[in-house]
Amino acid sequence: MRSFASDNYSGVHPEIMKAIMDANEDHMSSYGADPVSADAVELFRDIFGKQAQIFFLTTGTATNTLILRHLCKSWNSVICSEDAHINVDECGAPENMGIKLMLAETVNGKITVETIKPLVPSEADVHRAQPAVISITQNTELGTLYSVDEIKSICDFAHSKGLYVHMDGARIANAAAALGASFKEMTVDCGVDVLSFGGTKNGCMCAEAAVFITPEAGENFEYLRKQSMQLISKMRYVGAQFKALLTNELWKRNAAHSNTQARKLAEKAGAIEGVKITRPVEANGVFAIIPAHAVEKLQERFPFYVWDEQSGEVRWMTSWSTTDDDIDNFCAALTEII
Amino acid sequence: MRSFASDNYSGVHPEIMKAIMDANEDHMSSYGADPVSADAVELFRDIFGKQAQIFFLTTGTATNTLILRHLCKSWNSVICSEDAHINVDECGAPENMGIKLMLAETVNGKITVETIKPLVPSEADVHRAQPAVISITQNTELGTLYSVDEIKSICDFAHSKGLYVHMDGARIANAAAALGASFKEMTVDCGVDVLSFGGTKNGCMCAEAAVFITPEAGENFEYLRKQSMQLISKMRYVGAQFKALLTNELWKRNAAHSNTQARKLAEKAGAIEGVKITRPVEANGVFAIIPAHAVEKLQERFPFYVWDEQSGEVRWMTSWSTTDDDIDNFCAALTEII
Amino acid sequence: MRSFASDNYSGVHPEIMKAIMDANEDHMSSYGADPVSADAVELFRDIFGKQAQIFFLTTGTATNTLILRHLCKSWNSVICSEDAHINVDECGAPENMGIKLMLAETVNGKITVETIKPLVPSEADVHRAQPAVISITQNTELGTLYSVDEIKSICDFAHSKGLYVHMDGARIANAAAALGASFKEMTVDCGVDVLSFGGTKNGCMCAEAAVFITPEAGENFEYLRKQSMQLISKMRYVGAQFKALLTNELWKRNAAHSNTQARKLAEKAGAIEGVKITRPVEANGVFAIIPAHAVEKLQERFPFYVWDEQSGEVRWMTSWSTTDDDIDNFCAALTEII
Amino acid sequence: MRSFASDNYSGVHPEIMKAIMDANEDHMSSYGADPVSADAVELFRDIFGKQAQIFFLTTGTATNTLILRHLCKSWNSVICSEDAHINVDECGAPENMGIKLMLAETVNGKITVETIKPLVPSEADVHRAQPAVISITQNTELGTLYSVDEIKSICDFAHSKGLYVHMDGARIANAAAALGASFKEMTVDCGVDVLSFGGTKNGCMCAEAAVFITPEAGENFEYLRKQSMQLISKMRYVGAQFKALLTNELWKRNAAHSNTQARKLAEKAGAIEGVKITRPVEANGVFAIIPAHAVEKLQERFPFYVWDEQSGEVRWMTSWSTTDDDIDNFCAALTEII
Repeated sequence: MRSFASDNYSGVHPEIMKAIMDANEDHMSSYGADPVSADAVELFRDIFGKQAQIFFLTTGTATNTLILRHLCKSWNSVICSEDAHINVDECGAPENMGIKLMLAETVNGKITVETIKPLVPSEADVHRAQPAVISITQNTELGTLYSVDEIKSICDFAHSKGLYVHMDGARIANAAAALGASFKEMTVDCGVDVLSFGGTKNGCMCAEAAVFITPEAGENFEYLRKQSMQLISKMRYVGAQFKALLTNELWKRNAAHSNTQARKLAEKAGAIEGVKITRPVEANGVFAIIPAHAVEKLQERFPFYVWDEQSGEVRWMTSWSTTDDDIDNFCAALTEII
Repeated sequence: MRSFASDNYSGVHPEIMKAIMDANEDHMSSYGADPVSADAVELFRDIFGKQAQIFFLTTGTATNTLILRHLCKSWNSVICSEDAHINVDECGAPENMGIKLMLAETVNGKITVETIKPLVPSEADVHRAQPAVISITQNTELGTLYSVDEIKSICDFAHSKGLYVHMDGARIANAAAALGASFKEMTVDCGVDVLSFGGTKNGCMCAEAAVFITPEAGENFEYLRKQSMQLISKMRYVGAQFKALLTNELWKRNAAHSNTQARKLAEKAGAIEGVKITRPVEANGVFAIIPAHAVEKLQERFPFYVWDEQSGEVRWMTSWSTTDDDIDNFCAALTEII
Repeated sequence: MRSFASDNYSGVHPEIMKAIMDANEDHMSSYGADPVSADAVELFRDIFGKQAQIFFLTTGTATNTLILRHLCKSWNSVICSEDAHINVDECGAPENMGIKLMLAETVNGKITVETIKPLVPSEADVHRAQPAVISITQNTELGTLYSVDEIKSICDFAHSKGLYVHMDGARIANAAAALGASFKEMTVDCGVDVLSFGGTKNGCMCAEAAVFITPEAGENFEYLRKQSMQLISKMRYVGAQFKALLTNELWKRNAAHSNTQARKLAEKAGAIEGVKITRPVEANGVFAIIPAHAVEKLQERFPFYVWDEQSGEVRWMTSWSTTDDDIDNFCAALTEII
Repeated sequence: MRSFASDNYSGVHPEIMKAIMDANEDHMSSYGADPVSADAVELFRDIFGKQAQIFFLTTGTATNTLILRHLCKSWNSVICSEDAHINVDECGAPENMGIKLMLAETVNGKITVETIKPLVPSEADVHRAQPAVISITQNTELGTLYSVDEIKSICDFAHSKGLYVHMDGARIANAAAALGASFKEMTVDCGVDVLSFGGTKNGCMCAEAAVFITPEAGENFEYLRKQSMQLISKMRYVGAQFKALLTNELWKRNAAHSNTQARKLAEKAGAIEGVKITRPVEANGVFAIIPAHAVEKLQERFPFYVWDEQSGEVRWMTSWSTTDDDIDNFCAALTEII
């Protein structure tokens, strides 16, 4: 099968698979107290600072939800986009852990200080959930990017109100590659407090990290992770994935390739009569409207998702493993079906 | 490092690692809708029946806790052993999800109908949590085994009171190998409703399964798994682990080896002056009391856990990867230190 | 103090206080098993049908939240208005119990089948919270009313999709009096499944009821109420309040008076230069914009709430105890301050 | 009906009912911002110190559970007696809010430093719930009393380990009257951090207070109370109850009477052939074993509870309203039935 459904339809990059195999020697302490995980943590600290607190997990939903749970008292709320993965695609995981989301008006997946402001009350009120965190996704669920300045504005506003900033970075490598910015420039330097760093969609098997750039925000997170059933015992195999991803800029090679393929796909498919690209293509997602009769037929040959049932908008994701042939074959099929 | 700390200090068995690599081809549907996972599910159904509902997860804590959450209304409780992993070693995960545990008197890790009975009220009372599940661990946290008849008695009693039976089978392969019973004989044939089937401790990387033998008990569990942040996206790599484990009886080869090594260790270490084996050695755990001054020195060379701070009892676990040399070297070190 | 802040600034109606005192004799069974509560339950069943399951509580937040918790599995969601009390004024109580709210577009406090529809997915998806309930408030938080036909449309749509309908009736007596409809016509006959019946705002001390018109929806609710810390022991005093409220149509006398006073207030205040009534005055709430400089000065003499910080809109509530003098004095003060 | 089932079968003491009626004038701010509640808070501070943070609630279960929730992180646990109301009689309310209870060995309802010690680990461990609170009940569920010295010992131990001490004082007035100690001597002077102060069982209608003697432990508790659905709107009527209870030592008059009646009952009933008083009668509870055939017959005339189904032990509670006639009639009936 070849597909444009999601970057998680792809397999594991060979360099990462090799690292997993290399870690398969001897006995090692479990639950993260192993030397492979320690190496990976150091690679993260090289990026995000020596003060950063790093915790490995295996799903993006867990990483986002547990970070937010850790930053909030039970009566706090989280401000986010209407399109945020935490709002739309996590089956209510945040609410199931007691977190109220407050949705800011959103354009192309992005929120701004202007749309956030009305959700931050001028004074405490025991009848209202009290915002504690602003959560943004970089790159967004709609394939768009926050600029470094936009991130900084949101962080400045948040801190002026005593709020934390969380970044859902399930595809943060794609964002970094697209912006030509380092991870640090997009996060630490802007004032982001905590980052969900995604590895799985960028060629890993199951590797996500909670990166507490503001270290006191992460204090005791190890208890929450264990209690929330997320501490896998043979952690060395997660550590190994990150070690490979952060070595020789594999993260950037994978992400840049994925972004390039999205641009190619948008150009080639967008040139087909009857196809309209609906959003800016800034990372590895392409949104389009195609003739209604073509959707199911095309999905049978190349799985992808309908993004919006009402408008018929569809989403095509590329990944580190998307080849030029994939794009050519897909566009040929699309042309044929239309 | 070589150790007797836990079966999860071991790596991944080569046949399982090979299966993981073999699954690393092409695109596949994510979240479990892939052919590798489908094959693994079929292997489970060959064992537990075509009606069984199977769900893959990555930690034992998640598997136990989510099963119990799914079987209980919020006002229900779970009856278990004082030594149960769910009570002692999961950082309050069950209670964090709202589950009250009721602890039955326990001998060598086991509970009986007699010790369970006083916890089951004769009539409903709105002021009391209402038991809904009896949870037993096979083999137990203390390395002991429930006989098939003992399991059957507990199931019969449970069903006569309208309760479900859950089995925590983190080491169920060790139990099956030790009893010379099939998985089915120890579970389906006894009346067990739901099983936490553990792969990780028996040579997998991160592979646990919730097996709802009574299928209606598992209805909608897929939502709870997703919402509880446990649905990994590239599920094919978990499916591959189980596929290998359940092929050519790898589970039994691993478990039988592990059990054999435990018996050897108990015999050899038990013969050393000053060492007392404290529990029946029925699977792959050995409990002992050794001279207090020897504990830390021995741990430095071969990590293991002190089980009971008060009595000084220690625990030594063997695994699929424990060699005869490991045992010889460990006993030599122990002798030397004593 | 005289005020227009909330109907809960008022005291207890004398007929209700007398009933409380009358119940203060002898010993009675606690936790609701007393004859006074039994009488009150029968009065409810006379209205809502013999099948109805009735549970008394002491706060509106508890009544709403526990009903919704009871109707939902953990992965379900509740569709409601952006202005709903459950969304805005309960400090995240629903989310704290794991309930995800999905907000439908709202006009003057009301939602419609058209604004609800986009929130109901055409098929199940494990990544999305699954709607199970539509919750509407009658009369709404903005002092407006759903017509009987509007309620019926929402119920018909809900049931066609397998959803329950919950009505937050914190001020349901005001709605019934205003519409000239019976409780039954607005609920049972429309297809409402569960009602939060409010007594406190209509002259009681602390008396709310969860009325499960669809009785199976209320099964075992007594456990949830107790476990959620809401079962008061000397329940007879709550029963007594409802007994008085539902006797000799005290509920209607109180509500009709309150509604009348709101209309009078709107007319009189609306005639003052510089005062604009902003919403239809259909029950006992009056929304207005007054000169910004007048707000705080007026609040000092007659407390009331600013409803919308951005627009400056204020809210004035009347109650069973609002006198003509209150209105005259308030309008005189308002005129003077302006 | 006359009964010995529970002190909550009694009605409201006339002085308290009068205070409720007296508060029924005019409009007052809701949610506790009224002058009556303010007066009651001051009376509490006269007892427990000006630093104390006081919050009114309406059920004992809510008071205990919310205090414990507020003192604990999600991974913390609470050490208590096996007989504790929070363990046995609250339908799993603590666990439903995520609190793990750890049960210390108990004699006659009491725990000691010696039985608590084994539950406090010597070092942190991410796999174990970490104790944060020791909770004791004064007087206990078995009608016995902790001496001031015993309370002090437990507090000293707790504080040496960094734990809080919570006292469930559902019947604290009975304890104070019985010990001849002031509230302050039993709590503040011993080092108790937080107290559940019960009014309902001592003649109130529905009045419980969370008293944070250590004030920082109560910071933000108002949010938890609201979010947990426990903030009643017309709070003045709860304030009024406490105002009466703490005026002219009504609390002591009620409690002393209740205690006296228990002693009389124990003496008179204990003298009946076939009746055995099974526990020290130190407050207002009497535990006894009576002939099995007599239980149901006696219950029909004077309701009371069977405490222990296995042993047949029964519980008789007295209250502020128990008369000498009640005791005489009860003992006459008991004699007759035996």
